Amino acid sequence: MKNYFSSDFKLGILGGGQLGRMLLTETQKFDIHTSILDGNQNAPCAEICNTFVVGDLLDFDAVYNFGKTVDLLTIEIEKVNLDALDKLEEEGVAIYPKPKDLRIIQSKARQKNFYTDHQIPTAEFSHYAYLQELIHSYENDIIDFPFVWKAARFGYDGNGVKIVRNIEDLENLPKVECITEKLIPFKNELAVIVARNAAGEVTTYPVVEMEFHPEANQVEYVICPARIDFKVAEKAREVALEVVSKLDFVGLLAVEMFQTVDDQILVNEVAPRPHNSGHYSIEASYTSQFEQHLRSILNLPLGNTASKVAGIMVNLVGAEGFSGDVVYENLNDILKIDGVTPHIYGKKETRPFRKMGHVTIVNADVDKAREIAQKVKETIRVISK
Amino acid sequence: MKNYFSSDFKLGILGGGQLGRMLLTETQKFDIHTSILDGNQNAPCAEICNTFVVGDLLDFDAVYNFGKTVDLLTIEIEKVNLDALDKLEEEGVAIYPKPKDLRIIQSKARQKNFYTDHQIPTAEFSHYAYLQELIHSYENDIIDFPFVWKAARFGYDGNGVKIVRNIEDLENLPKVECITEKLIPFKNELAVIVARNAAGEVTTYPVVEMEFHPEANQVEYVICPARIDFKVAEKAREVALEVVSKLDFVGLLAVEMFQTVDDQILVNEVAPRPHNSGHYSIEASYTSQFEQHLRSILNLPLGNTASKVAGIMVNLVGAEGFSGDVVYENLNDILKIDGVTPHIYGKKETRPFRKMGHVTIVNADVDKAREIAQKVKETIRVISK
Repeated sequence: MKNYFSSDFKLGILGGGQLGRMLLTETQKFDIHTSILDGNQNAPCAEICNTFVVGDLLDFDAVYNFGKTVDLLTIEIEKVNLDALDKLEEEGVAIYPKPKDLRIIQSKARQKNFYTDHQIPTAEFSHYAYLQELIHSYENDIIDFPFVWKAARFGYDGNGVKIVRNIEDLENLPKVECITEKLIPFKNELAVIVARNAAGEVTTYPVVEMEFHPEANQVEYVICPARIDFKVAEKAREVALEVVSKLDFVGLLAVEMFQTVDDQILVNEVAPRPHNSGHYSIEASYTSQFEQHLRSILNLPLGNTASKVAGIMVNLVGAEGFSGDVVYENLNDILKIDGVTPHIYGKKETRPFRKMGHVTIVNADVDKAREIAQKVKETIRVISK
Repeated sequence: MKNYFSSDFKLGILGGGQLGRMLLTETQKFDIHTSILDGNQNAPCAEICNTFVVGDLLDFDAVYNFGKTVDLLTIEIEKVNLDALDKLEEEGVAIYPKPKDLRIIQSKARQKNFYTDHQIPTAEFSHYAYLQELIHSYENDIIDFPFVWKAARFGYDGNGVKIVRNIEDLENLPKVECITEKLIPFKNELAVIVARNAAGEVTTYPVVEMEFHPEANQVEYVICPARIDFKVAEKAREVALEVVSKLDFVGLLAVEMFQTVDDQILVNEVAPRPHNSGHYSIEASYTSQFEQHLRSILNLPLGNTASKVAGIMVNLVGAEGFSGDVVYENLNDILKIDGVTPHIYGKKETRPFRKMGHVTIVNADVDKAREIAQKVKETIRVISK
């Protein structure tokens, strides 16, 4: 068994954003040496990893050269140059998650084909290499409004997803490869985080629920455990495990799903890394998703995914109308509330809707946590000076 | 209210050891800029703080010049140049804990006088400016064996404390200022961590118990909650609060106490910072002692000190007979056990009895946690290559 702890072993991480930053808490706890590559010299990880390298994650040479300096390579963002990863893997660099899985996941079209090919339940879809093909389909009555449009590549945090209701929406879509899906009426949006190590050990975290704002179509709270029927939760865990099994995945996989009005589970999309839907685990779980990511990619025994207490997460995004040096208005007020933990990602500049941090609310009682979460959301505001 | 988060505010920390390192987890979470001064360029904090300065913590100029570069100064070790802190304080630098309290705490003799002057229960003691005075007392039948000898200054982690049982022990003592105490027969060694901010808000953590090895006189486990009578725990918390109140302390104070055979509480000594007896709080408490230290020195609202689950801590010290590049033998085996979290401090070289890390065991049931802790202690070993 490799000695990772206070040793010469070097873990490379592609990406130095907030996910990398929260991963660094765990590498620091275990004293695992980390090198990070990111295109932004002021990335959240820049000052707090062992070695920080500035370079474009989509550039072959930057990724390849960085990969040659580390013993094992992982990612905190999937938007990376995969040809470089393929070559590194050929040359013997250990890479988890595996480049072949990243290739499937990077493209929404490939993801959907993968689900269909492997009998994993997902919403029906069509794939268009160009916008013009989609418009052509509409003109020939093959597709009708409303439908969901998704950019095939590099959609992120709701970017690259639109609900298309009319001809104007259709004509304003970006001219890129895309998929469309039927608009599924769903009861709940759920997520399950699965971890698997190279030895084949697998764990699932409890099912979480994304609660949406009743008017704005925006996730407001991630709630663990989801307030759903036990049988639906079991089904969601099974589907998530099925995805991991069919991918032969190694690492942490966040599986986002819809619970339909008739309690079917449909896979929406997956992320091959720690995920917003698992941030609650830092405070609420026996093992945080970031520690579990480390354990899985290093082929260490996986940790207990159960919760000590209920956990709810609220994202801190930049308020509309504010750009510039960030100020967290009323942060001190939320610190007065028991079980409330803000995480500030270290981005100095706010912009409308930019993810600047999150707040976790833990409580023995999930309903009490939900009440407090609302109070937190109504109190704190991310503005500029 | 000051804006500490993602701002220009600079927190200075004197000392870059493991306590500083665990504090950095919290400053990173809140994105508070940290500058650290330490004499060792390879200190555990060196690579993971925002600014690391190499300099002797006992040197006036090193501390003074460092202090001038930060907005607020705190410590992770009390062995620092206090004259420099006095001057910095005069010149308007905010320093918590206050230099006057550090001056009392740095000297065991001053500490004991302080307890006596303020009617805080403590073991009877005598103070000797030189070893020769102590020998003289013995020769004149003023003191008799056995007694406890403590170096007056800079004893740390059990260094500088000896039980003197005979004339040979006496003559082998270091020739330094010291105090002696009656050897108190005690049932339990307890500790309470108290936090107080400048606004006067005070919180106490639950009473923890140090369980000793039945033969070796060495703490094996720190157990939270202590398995003692509720009334004794209440008394311990009251005594700890009394110390904080009498010192007019701001920051985190760990108060170590004896529970005597007749259930009296006697203060043994205090530490003005996060403490080994509070490490369990990282995994077990709603607010870790490191976050609470930050909250207290920054005059933020204090966090909830209650526990989510029971917590037990086992220190990882270098095994006898091993010196050199560290290896954590069987670390993977303890990772298999639910609720077990190792913390590796980032010291590359082990030496017999050097504090290299700790392991926290959390469980809903304290007795189950105690069983697992024993298994952990019997499994892992800190050796060299």
